[in-house]
Amino acid sequence: MTTTTYEINRGRVIAVAAELFARNGYHGTGIAELGRAVGLGRGALYHYIGSKEAVLYAISKDQVDKMNSYAEEVLDRGLDADELLRELARGLLRNIADHRAEWAVFFREYNALTGDRRDEVIAARERYEGYWRQALDRGVRSGVLRQTPRLLVKGILGMLNYTYLWFTPDGELAPEALADLFLDALINGIHS
Amino acid sequence: MTTTTYEINRGRVIAVAAELFARNGYHGTGIAELGRAVGLGRGALYHYIGSKEAVLYAISKDQVDKMNSYAEEVLDRGLDADELLRELARGLLRNIADHRAEWAVFFREYNALTGDRRDEVIAARERYEGYWRQALDRGVRSGVLRQTPRLLVKGILGMLNYTYLWFTPDGELAPEALADLFLDALINGIHS
Repeated sequence: MTTTTYEINRGRVIAVAAELFARNGYHGTGIAELGRAVGLGRGALYHYIGSKEAVLYAISKDQVDKMNSYAEEVLDRGLDADELLRELARGLLRNIADHRAEWAVFFREYNALTGDRRDEVIAARERYEGYWRQALDRGVRSGVLRQTPRLLVKGILGMLNYTYLWFTPDGELAPEALADLFLDALINGIHS
Repeated sequence: MTTTTYEINRGRVIAVAAELFARNGYHGTGIAELGRAVGLGRGALYHYIGSKEAVLYAISKDQVDKMNSYAEEVLDRGLDADELLRELARGLLRNIADHRAEWAVFFREYNALTGDRRDEVIAARERYEGYWRQALDRGVRSGVLRQTPRLLVKGILGMLNYTYLWFTPDGELAPEALADLFLDALINGIHS
């Protein structure tokens, strides 16, 4: 399948929009400003993205969809619970590190989405949380993990998602190594 | 010490601003809009808060300062490391639950701060992280906790801070109980 010019241009508009929204806020960025940043007039911009809210939706949904596809693939590998959780965490931290602007916009601004777009992003997020629950449940069934409260998934995702705020991959520590550092504490505990 | 009318009015302006910034973004909220919401003209508003950035600074700094004072007080109680960590977490989750708008604004918008204000908020945040490190170090020294990487503090705070995005205290689960749920997983691990 080849990528069309339309897809390339649309992807560029969304990437530039993510940078602008991350820097100046969704509400603080005008559609005209986005047009100037990508060198497109109002008509061309509309052709690629439709509306400002449609861009916010694309920024948010694309990354969550990618994480869902990745989680489905990892869950199908037949890994032990320990390695399964680590792989989920590694993939998420790698994606956040590679798309910091998109994740910053998603976490800060998804509340600005309305109607179906909002519902779809929330549903996709819940699906992602569900995959983590599946991984934890699999660990309990196989006897590797103890039973923990369902809300713990929110804590694990908080630990990982929060990296968008502070983690800059600078070569010293890869996102995958950071994921292992966190998962090691979580799986084995910090008790001596 | 009595609270002056000035302090009461200033506190009200800051609380209303937090709600507006949380709903419409810092960049998406005008100073005139804030004035209308609190029923003050430009001059009176200026008297209480000075500038929009000064409000963002107050919203962010007040909560972080409160958490620093709380951490200092808890660290002085001579608690065991396990209970010390739990108390730090309980206090943070209670504060986030009671000030969701302020924390949402802080996490989303502190990047909009500039100059000294920015430096001071970042320094206060680092002080807070330092208190968590002290608590972990104390646990290692007393033999209760194992030595863990310094970056783990960022993970623990992510787990806790992220609650501003999803946790609504509705009477079923108090923030303190949620803190214990997370800390139990972290301290004891999820391994069977």
